[in-house]
Amino acid sequence: MTDRIRDFLRVRRDLGQDEGPVMVLDLDVVRDNYTAFARALPDTRVFYAVKANPAPEVLRLLAEMGSCFDTASVAEIEMALAAGASPDRISFGNTIKKERDVVRALKLGIRLFAIDCEVEADKIARAAQAAAVETAEIQVFCRILCDGAGADWPLSRKFGCVPEMAVDVLEHAHRQGLHAYGVSFHVGSQQANTEAWDGALASASAIFQDCATRGIGLSMVNLGGGFPTKYLKAVPGVESYGDAIFRALTKHFGNRIPETIIEPGRGMVGNAGLIEAEVVLVSKKSQAEDEVRWVYLDIGKFGGLAETMDESIRYAIRTEHDADRMSPCVIAGPTCDSVDVLYEKQHYPLPVSLSIGDKVLIEGAGAYTTTYAAVAFNGFPPLRQIVI
Amino acid sequence: MTDRIRDFLRVRRDLGQDEGPVMVLDLDVVRDNYTAFARALPDTRVFYAVKANPAPEVLRLLAEMGSCFDTASVAEIEMALAAGASPDRISFGNTIKKERDVVRALKLGIRLFAIDCEVEADKIARAAQAAAVETAEIQVFCRILCDGAGADWPLSRKFGCVPEMAVDVLEHAHRQGLHAYGVSFHVGSQQANTEAWDGALASASAIFQDCATRGIGLSMVNLGGGFPTKYLKAVPGVESYGDAIFRALTKHFGNRIPETIIEPGRGMVGNAGLIEAEVVLVSKKSQAEDEVRWVYLDIGKFGGLAETMDESIRYAIRTEHDADRMSPCVIAGPTCDSVDVLYEKQHYPLPVSLSIGDKVLIEGAGAYTTTYAAVAFNGFPPLRQIVI
Repeated sequence: MTDRIRDFLRVRRDLGQDEGPVMVLDLDVVRDNYTAFARALPDTRVFYAVKANPAPEVLRLLAEMGSCFDTASVAEIEMALAAGASPDRISFGNTIKKERDVVRALKLGIRLFAIDCEVEADKIARAAQAAAVETAEIQVFCRILCDGAGADWPLSRKFGCVPEMAVDVLEHAHRQGLHAYGVSFHVGSQQANTEAWDGALASASAIFQDCATRGIGLSMVNLGGGFPTKYLKAVPGVESYGDAIFRALTKHFGNRIPETIIEPGRGMVGNAGLIEAEVVLVSKKSQAEDEVRWVYLDIGKFGGLAETMDESIRYAIRTEHDADRMSPCVIAGPTCDSVDVLYEKQHYPLPVSLSIGDKVLIEGAGAYTTTYAAVAFNGFPPLRQIVI
Repeated sequence: MTDRIRDFLRVRRDLGQDEGPVMVLDLDVVRDNYTAFARALPDTRVFYAVKANPAPEVLRLLAEMGSCFDTASVAEIEMALAAGASPDRISFGNTIKKERDVVRALKLGIRLFAIDCEVEADKIARAAQAAAVETAEIQVFCRILCDGAGADWPLSRKFGCVPEMAVDVLEHAHRQGLHAYGVSFHVGSQQANTEAWDGALASASAIFQDCATRGIGLSMVNLGGGFPTKYLKAVPGVESYGDAIFRALTKHFGNRIPETIIEPGRGMVGNAGLIEAEVVLVSKKSQAEDEVRWVYLDIGKFGGLAETMDESIRYAIRTEHDADRMSPCVIAGPTCDSVDVLYEKQHYPLPVSLSIGDKVLIEGAGAYTTTYAAVAFNGFPPLRQIVI
């Protein structure tokens, strides 16, 4: 909660314009985060993961500060370009691409692509022909699987292949005339263990060596995202990650440290945003003394808090009564959908004096909220965002 | 898959307008479903659960056919009114309502409300004063908890109170001058057990008796939704549900059968809609012989198939190669989000000849798809719907 957000919310309330949940994002925090990443990993290029929050103001600020952009679709590429990024600062980081979208990306000037299998390399080679682009100008990196231990939002096996296969994928890309550029991985979102990069960098180093024996000189390691934002638990600072990554790079690559990329999303914008919501109802399911309170907010899983799925992300929720006695609650959203419950398995302590109409502040809500919101479920509009 | 949908998709493809996933909804099927409900439960008023699919064409058709509407928000009330329903055919069925939304609903003419606690009754009584409506004109029904056994999308304890408490809630509403009208429950979505209504009707009958001893004459039972649509498994027909419900009503209410309401959503529109999507990638994570195929579609959890959450709803997926040999696959969506995987715990059989660019047809997709879609996650637009 920054002073700027506090002042903004006060004015909004005084004007009586505070109906409905809103996410307020403070660009000063994004600026600080970018600076912290750039300082912690001075030789690493920062590719902001646009999907975390594609607000034009965020993209423009980061483009001005020199950030590059990791995109998931042609629409995101266009947003990054519109924000002022040149095409050489944009990667098409999705391993799942339609061939016609690769053609579009190439025509927009994009030359850096993620792949994790041979057929995806074939698509890019064919698309190059369709877009009249030299294949040698196109850099591809192969994503490898990573176990994600230590992450609050661990990744499935959806992206990447086993390291042994990556060597063949990169060789295949090389034979198609593409520039086999490097390796990428992702240690899992909201990764609390600064050492998580070590194992993946060992694999990356082995792939570099195997490719070298096949005459292919890789030169880049994409370290992915995973940098956490603070929710309820404290997390290590960016500099700790920088130190640990640098140590692991030195350990596995010696004095031939490759170019590196990071793709922070949550770590760049998570703590910049705060949601103000309202208590719609406080009730109990029975009149038993020990019955738990249910607190219903005007925001839930479908209105922007999708990451409470399986209670993975536990947001810090502040109220004006936090000095009062606390008692455990179930917290739920406003829709007529019974899965729209935020915290139930592990009850959430809220003040006993919290009542209908009170405002609550949900911290660390700058990432994966506005775009995760459903288009109009139950007739509720998607989460509004105000960037200040 | 109806002939009308088949013809429509063929024309669309011939015109080259088939890029991106689309949900096509056949109004003839909705018409048949409404007729089947009306026939199976001839003395029951049908309140279509607007949240299942609020397409204006669907609402207009149902309004013309005489349906009533169960709404979750003021926006849904406005949609039902715009479709031609008079206010006396609309219920505000959400137990979680902002007081100002109750005022708005009352001003729009709505007089039927769900509650599950005393404070919600208080809200309605205060709102009546603000809207200058006589409290006695306002009918409230109290929702009770129900265990949901037998449902594919079982409900949490989010809505309703225990039956003993319902009596107090209704008496409280009565003392506020509201018309204590009846009881509601929901046996769980996609309920395959036609007998599931029996236990809840026993509770409802007990509440009627307890209220009568307190001088309050209830007259309505809202039987909720839960009527299934056919996904992969066959489900009983609507007439079986009608028979079982009528038997349970007679068993518990004897010859004093109350007015009844049903709230079908999925059962009204589920089988009317079909999604056409495209295979974006087919790949494996390693070169091992027994490695499972991953099939990536251009639609996933965030693009409209949210109900695959925890693999709850298992859609029937058809391809043009279904005569070929099948092998188990993991099916995933197109976003850069690792939770965007549809079926992984239980692999899904798809033809071995399925390849990149092929179309797939996802059946039974008329309910809870278009409105569950994220607003623009990863830059992908929400699911498009075409009503024919």
